[in-house]
Amino acid sequence: MSEGFIDELRSALDKGAVLSGGDIDARYHHDIAGNPVPKPRAVVRPRTTEDVSRLLRLCHREGVPVTTQGGMTGLVRGALPNANEIVLSMERMNSVEEVDASAGVAIAQAGTPLQKLQERVEQDGLMFPLDLGARGSCTIGGNISTNAGGNRVIRYGMTRDLILGLEVVTADGTVLKGLRKYIKNNTGIDLKQLFIGSEGILGVVTRAALRVFPAPVERQVALCALPSFGQVTTFLRMARESLGGELTAFEVMWNAYYRLTVERVKGVAGPLPTHHPFYVLLEASGSNPERIHADLEKLLETAMGDNLILDATLSTSNASAAAIWRIRDSSVELGRTFPYTARVGFDVSLAIGRMEEYADTIGSRVRAIDPQAFAIVFGHAGDGNLHVNVHHEKTPDKHDEFERLVYDITGEFGGSISAEHGIGILKRPYLKMSRTEEEIETMRTLKRALDPKNILNPGRIFTV
Amino acid sequence: MSEGFIDELRSALDKGAVLSGGDIDARYHHDIAGNPVPKPRAVVRPRTTEDVSRLLRLCHREGVPVTTQGGMTGLVRGALPNANEIVLSMERMNSVEEVDASAGVAIAQAGTPLQKLQERVEQDGLMFPLDLGARGSCTIGGNISTNAGGNRVIRYGMTRDLILGLEVVTADGTVLKGLRKYIKNNTGIDLKQLFIGSEGILGVVTRAALRVFPAPVERQVALCALPSFGQVTTFLRMARESLGGELTAFEVMWNAYYRLTVERVKGVAGPLPTHHPFYVLLEASGSNPERIHADLEKLLETAMGDNLILDATLSTSNASAAAIWRIRDSSVELGRTFPYTARVGFDVSLAIGRMEEYADTIGSRVRAIDPQAFAIVFGHAGDGNLHVNVHHEKTPDKHDEFERLVYDITGEFGGSISAEHGIGILKRPYLKMSRTEEEIETMRTLKRALDPKNILNPGRIFTV
Repeated sequence: MSEGFIDELRSALDKGAVLSGGDIDARYHHDIAGNPVPKPRAVVRPRTTEDVSRLLRLCHREGVPVTTQGGMTGLVRGALPNANEIVLSMERMNSVEEVDASAGVAIAQAGTPLQKLQERVEQDGLMFPLDLGARGSCTIGGNISTNAGGNRVIRYGMTRDLILGLEVVTADGTVLKGLRKYIKNNTGIDLKQLFIGSEGILGVVTRAALRVFPAPVERQVALCALPSFGQVTTFLRMARESLGGELTAFEVMWNAYYRLTVERVKGVAGPLPTHHPFYVLLEASGSNPERIHADLEKLLETAMGDNLILDATLSTSNASAAAIWRIRDSSVELGRTFPYTARVGFDVSLAIGRMEEYADTIGSRVRAIDPQAFAIVFGHAGDGNLHVNVHHEKTPDKHDEFERLVYDITGEFGGSISAEHGIGILKRPYLKMSRTEEEIETMRTLKRALDPKNILNPGRIFTV
Repeated sequence: MSEGFIDELRSALDKGAVLSGGDIDARYHHDIAGNPVPKPRAVVRPRTTEDVSRLLRLCHREGVPVTTQGGMTGLVRGALPNANEIVLSMERMNSVEEVDASAGVAIAQAGTPLQKLQERVEQDGLMFPLDLGARGSCTIGGNISTNAGGNRVIRYGMTRDLILGLEVVTADGTVLKGLRKYIKNNTGIDLKQLFIGSEGILGVVTRAALRVFPAPVERQVALCALPSFGQVTTFLRMARESLGGELTAFEVMWNAYYRLTVERVKGVAGPLPTHHPFYVLLEASGSNPERIHADLEKLLETAMGDNLILDATLSTSNASAAAIWRIRDSSVELGRTFPYTARVGFDVSLAIGRMEEYADTIGSRVRAIDPQAFAIVFGHAGDGNLHVNVHHEKTPDKHDEFERLVYDITGEFGGSISAEHGIGILKRPYLKMSRTEEEIETMRTLKRALDPKNILNPGRIFTV
């Protein structure tokens, strides 16, 4: 970076867009896992797509690396700056620009927090179905760059499935104006797909045209206790068949997750006792309240009659539904109740038929290394996705060993090492467990073609 | 192409895979629109992915262009060989290799006809939801390469939404083994997205892991007559709200389409009189027959009571449902009943609120050129997608003028020039009406990076 480069940025961009030195707040280089992060050379906070383009054109010319930041809630260190990088924060591009109920589209700037978008479209009787625990701080741009999943994938798909068009700035400052609203548009290579889920290494998303749906009139949540994982899978099949398109979430929690969350996380209450082996949170939504109630009650009755579920509670109000969701959404808070913060968090896809054996294998092999270590397992069973946290307070020096162990077991079970969190820096050493050499080499070819100077989030996912 | 190249292919590949000279059947260079097509230098019909890889490695070395063929039902001349090209026909890779009901996945070779796959998974009580009129001859590989849409997009999305993993051979013969079965797999760039809908210019799809769903127990079809397009859109909103996830198709036909199909296409019977301005085919599906019947009857009653629909008929059996579908599926047959085969066919996306004005504008401006010319309009209204055929039997010399006219009007209405058919050769001159210069240049960058010798379907979509 040449001497006067920061000054050149200052004069090229919107006044106040460039922060440096003491003006850089700690939040731009803060790791939620507590590891030290170098301070960036500058933080640039554009208000317009044109400023993003100007910034990248200059950085491309100089070969200056840039790391793009959304809400900083990612779990794979993808948005933390390396030494000498410039941070591009999207926090000032946070407007919902348009909501079109008849077309079923909302247009939002990339720095818009997810919850802000959710609440804005609710005013028009609509729903943006993407939802995850970090909704208050994560941004639409971050959701797109990581192809976020979350709680309603079973009904509405991943973020990718909710995107109609994207405006993107590529490494040399070119603006790809693809903010289209069509559901169907087969006109050559679908470029937006390249930028969804590629963690910002191919371009910076600046605005998105997103699918919105009529908000369900009624949403009801049940929490159920089940005696075995076999019964969880039978119950899932039964729920799919009887609820059809009304089934909007099916989340499973192993005993340790439910029990410890109820016992340790402040403000969380458990409506069912904590001794059951498995808990399922099930959500049904639709336009006909009587039907949703009747369908859900009938499902629970049948499941009880078949001895699939041991106990269950149904939400009776929005508040009680939110209280049940709060249990499932408290995974980060649960982690924070343990003193050793470097707990190992995993996010895997695998066949639902092998999930119980997978969790048991992790539990026993974790205990073989450290008898007091244990795994907390939960996740989106209906999507084939589990989250696993391994707690080993007494053996912090064995972090790498536990990490390796879980990835090895995931490989043995034919799973994916990242269902929704992405690769970033943290999982880079394990990428080859889920992608072939030829695939990784093809990714490199694309990166070199679109970012020949390797300035966008360099070193994330793979090294060039 | 060097002298002995065809012989080299013959010795490198499976015996019988290479046809040349008089062994090349006319079907490999037959245009359904009747235009002359040059005979390819050879037709290669591999049985294995390894043979596709060997073929491309040799063609890459020699710089020999290859055009890949599926069922040859495309509408944009994308699969017709240019002079001196080698045809890669996928017709011998046509097996459904695996159907896994519990995982909801089927694995099929690219040359498998769509209907063969549909029927195979039906044996296991499953449904592959992609469906279009060409089902008997189009192939899974062709569906993927064109991101086919069809009749159930409103509920299940485009082909892209139905793909979990792909095996692809790139231009230099590299095999990308991405045949994964996960719904969620965020492990770096999602390479498969590059090959879906890019019309074979970046790679050859050899096998696919496809999502399959429990087959609905009941499927019922209604055909309705409506007095105006405004009432069509109100009826669509009502159907979405009242049927929710049960609504699996909503197809609209302008009077000319319905009337002419009933009058001219052999074997098609019209259950409603032919004088109504608009006809809607609506399909509802689900696991509970009584509920589907009751919901559909209630919807039709309400719509009749609100004077939205003038007349309606409900299917009473699989046979009567198929008879109604046959009307909507006969667009190609209808075109063939006109003596002048070079009718101009369009496939556009636009806002549903502007569809009526769009169709009226085309009608009046077509008549201004030729008073006896007329437009036939129909399509997937629920997805924002219309098909338009302009018939101008008396003025065949004005083909280009009519084509230009419809694209101009599509541009004026902010529409996409290809909702589902793709660009191929036919629409290449109009690509810039739906994509920006920067987007097309980025497509070229990708093409050069993945196919530096420009051997895969060269000249389709754009020239390098």
